[in-house]
Amino acid sequence: MKKTVITISREYGSGGRLIAKKLAEELGIGYYDGELLSLVAKESGYTEEFVRRNDQKKTQSLLYHLYIGSQILPASDMIFIAQSRVIKDLYNKESCVIVGRCADYVLRGCPDVINVFITAPLESRIERVKNEYGEQADNYRTYLTKKDKSRIAYYNYFADDAWGKVQTYDLSINSDIGIDKSADLIAQYIKEKVGE
Amino acid sequence: MKKTVITISREYGSGGRLIAKKLAEELGIGYYDGELLSLVAKESGYTEEFVRRNDQKKTQSLLYHLYIGSQILPASDMIFIAQSRVIKDLYNKESCVIVGRCADYVLRGCPDVINVFITAPLESRIERVKNEYGEQADNYRTYLTKKDKSRIAYYNYFADDAWGKVQTYDLSINSDIGIDKSADLIAQYIKEKVGE
Repeated sequence: MKKTVITISREYGSGGRLIAKKLAEELGIGYYDGELLSLVAKESGYTEEFVRRNDQKKTQSLLYHLYIGSQILPASDMIFIAQSRVIKDLYNKESCVIVGRCADYVLRGCPDVINVFITAPLESRIERVKNEYGEQADNYRTYLTKKDKSRIAYYNYFADDAWGKVQTYDLSINSDIGIDKSADLIAQYIKEKVGE
Repeated sequence: MKKTVITISREYGSGGRLIAKKLAEELGIGYYDGELLSLVAKESGYTEEFVRRNDQKKTQSLLYHLYIGSQILPASDMIFIAQSRVIKDLYNKESCVIVGRCADYVLRGCPDVINVFITAPLESRIERVKNEYGEQADNYRTYLTKKDKSRIAYYNYFADDAWGKVQTYDLSINSDIGIDKSADLIAQYIKEKVGE
């Protein structure tokens, strides 16, 4: 397959991560989620580099320190930037599936990127979170609403308001047809798009 | 195929109507767009019934007339209500593909309804509107932006703000893979969903 990077965004409990893994297997390409991206970022020294650079700034004069103090990025921003660099490195290097981390935004405008969104009705998501993920909550509806809000807030903080808008994605799919069938259909779309 | 109604929403110039027609052919079921729905509504006497009912109200006392005057619906509302009734009749009667007219909203909560959205990048839409639809405009970008806004305004007026949100649809697809291939992929999704 021609070099292609597939970004997967998803609602919590939609099975998006499972679909992404299955898709990567089907296409025989790499799979990266937030955890893996952090790991790669650490290994590549991206976060260390940031820490060191910020530490160096702290060795300046008190006045400079006070001035620059407000410019030191919070840890979450540093991690996001490190992950974004890894995403861009991956884009330059190999075909892969990247889950979350605003990868669609990080790679916006780049050719050979296919953006996919996985949805599922609230009832199906509650079912999956409860019985498959084994997560505990007093009220699963509230639990999932909070998870959704946090995901949207993350995107809006680091990217823009394009999360969950059909125009942002090449394909969005309700995963109620099943994990494997969803992955199959996405794989087929990708093959049509890439021309193979 | 088990009785299923497929609603198609789309961006102007995405080829959504062509895809919907092709899809209806592929599945061997009826196809209805706004024009056809109006025709059916007229034939069923829905709009006439509305006009007559409102006319009857006008035969009441002047005071009642003044009171009721503000309650007479504008023509566009009457047409929308008539079309919505036709959509519900169709839903009760047969499998079909319905394009636009907030059909996803009219049938929200009904089982056996599959909602699909067709997108396309602005450049592809300009190309299609210019060369395939043969429409004239000084500035196609402005022309399409206006068309988009008018479509969203129509939906927001008669329905709610769910237009173009991935959660509203079972499937959304960027039609750049081609009209036939898009229709094929949607047909496949529907068969998976319906279980055939």
